[in-house]
Amino acid sequence: MKYFITGGAGFIGSSLADKLSDDPANQVIIYDNMSTGFSEFIEALSDKVNVKVIYGDVLDEQKLNESIIGSDFVFHLSANADVRFGLMHPKRDLEQNTIATHNVLEAMRLGGVNKIAFSSTGSVYGEAPVIPTPEDCPFPVQTSLYASSKLAGEALISSYCEGFGFTGYIFRFVSILGERYTHGHVFDFYRQLMNNPNELKVLGNGKQRKSYLYIEDCINAMMTIINNTSDKVNIYNLGTDEYCEVNNSIQWICEYLGINPKLDYTGGERGWVGDNPFIFLDCGKLKDLGWKAELSIKEAVIKTVQYIEKNTWIYDRR
Amino acid sequence: MKYFITGGAGFIGSSLADKLSDDPANQVIIYDNMSTGFSEFIEALSDKVNVKVIYGDVLDEQKLNESIIGSDFVFHLSANADVRFGLMHPKRDLEQNTIATHNVLEAMRLGGVNKIAFSSTGSVYGEAPVIPTPEDCPFPVQTSLYASSKLAGEALISSYCEGFGFTGYIFRFVSILGERYTHGHVFDFYRQLMNNPNELKVLGNGKQRKSYLYIEDCINAMMTIINNTSDKVNIYNLGTDEYCEVNNSIQWICEYLGINPKLDYTGGERGWVGDNPFIFLDCGKLKDLGWKAELSIKEAVIKTVQYIEKNTWIYDRR
Repeated sequence: MKYFITGGAGFIGSSLADKLSDDPANQVIIYDNMSTGFSEFIEALSDKVNVKVIYGDVLDEQKLNESIIGSDFVFHLSANADVRFGLMHPKRDLEQNTIATHNVLEAMRLGGVNKIAFSSTGSVYGEAPVIPTPEDCPFPVQTSLYASSKLAGEALISSYCEGFGFTGYIFRFVSILGERYTHGHVFDFYRQLMNNPNELKVLGNGKQRKSYLYIEDCINAMMTIINNTSDKVNIYNLGTDEYCEVNNSIQWICEYLGINPKLDYTGGERGWVGDNPFIFLDCGKLKDLGWKAELSIKEAVIKTVQYIEKNTWIYDRR
Repeated sequence: MKYFITGGAGFIGSSLADKLSDDPANQVIIYDNMSTGFSEFIEALSDKVNVKVIYGDVLDEQKLNESIIGSDFVFHLSANADVRFGLMHPKRDLEQNTIATHNVLEAMRLGGVNKIAFSSTGSVYGEAPVIPTPEDCPFPVQTSLYASSKLAGEALISSYCEGFGFTGYIFRFVSILGERYTHGHVFDFYRQLMNNPNELKVLGNGKQRKSYLYIEDCINAMMTIINNTSDKVNIYNLGTDEYCEVNNSIQWICEYLGINPKLDYTGGERGWVGDNPFIFLDCGKLKDLGWKAELSIKEAVIKTVQYIEKNTWIYDRR
């Protein structure tokens, strides 16, 4: 199989490329503009004979159209993935997520490629009235430009499945943790504690409840879904059976680091405007395929800290 | 109140402008690029002292930004409204609906305007598993580029409500009928019958079940919602308590015209790819505000035929 991965030099994309390229029968094309991807993540990969790296932007339609030809399966993972700062750049999610997804679908249609997997988000459920939230929960109201743009991407994909005979895999991720993690709360906390281990500023009241998934479990879940389902549109929540408070995560990080900082909360039940105070997905549909998470949230948080400890260069590059 | 209506020279927009401008305390700005609007619809309006017509495109950001300044309330009704031909122009819905809605929201934000009403569609429910379909039905899967772009518009609006303190009114319309109706099945059927009253080609098997609403009932419903609700995001289905088969509509039209054409069905339960064979919305939320439809679907179909009979010039202009 020839796999084409947009955002293939990013956190999830490069981990997936590692996995796929382990099978010599596969060919992997990494397509990335390196805006949030890192060449370090694909250094080893680019030496492999079955991996090709293309420096390209999903907004560059001509390059994308040309590059995608001959692929069998597209993982569309490139995105503006930072939900928090959407309001500061109201056009960014539209361009990098909605329009980009349209471009990928059009490139596929023009190039005769018709299988796509897409990194959506549990944030599309907004402030869900049903928790844990199943895939067919009540029609949600969006609260962030990020989730809105991901929902628009999901809708485009399912329309191409209906209209052009595509097969679509839509993954609604919780936050992913682990090696190569380059944004989010563990990343922010570690940076603060590296600068001053005696004080930690926490957005909100620390009681936000969130769900997390370890990157290897995430990749395994994606492959489980793709290998075991083939409906026109396959929509799956990807998460674990547990959630934690931000305060739990802080405690685990501080215990691991052996520090006891003063916690300075900004207050309120949301970390930022559009933040969802409780994200917990019902992953029964995924588990019915035989998948289960190997790592707990606590283990994933510690793995993440251990990775960042050895890779503080990431902070200089962001 | 100063109302700004995108698509103000269109079917629904011009009817709304008529209504709003009847109150001399209101000012009405019609913003339209005349691509599917008609100057005939706003001829009488443009003579009124409290109406201003601006020939502008919602994709012309500079003109839109300048024109919207000073408005109190925006009705964003401009759209590519033809669901059927989306697959022939995969970029049209993205540009004219999704990106256009982003532009309107940005123009409002920059211009300090924060109340918006939006013409969405019952098509966002896809092939709904719950019929009649309430606003909070299960998370739908999109089947058309048109509905996808409308869903994207809804999501952008609710995100601006959450992020920038906007108030949003989202109307999920069934198909609207009546004076100034310029596309859809009654329009297509009348044209065919005008050319040849002995034969009528029908998309699908004629058993598609659809719901319709008369334009005056639609305008009254919109104003009822705006005048009686003020949540951050106000989402309402707009339809009637009934639905009909396409075959019923054909029968009413033919009875009225006194003809008996041979019916030539293209077959299948969908009229086109992405067509929903059964659209019937639960409008209980709207009726709880005291509104009710004055006209039945049959009466609305006849009114539409009567209008088209007297205005066949529309066919020459499309």
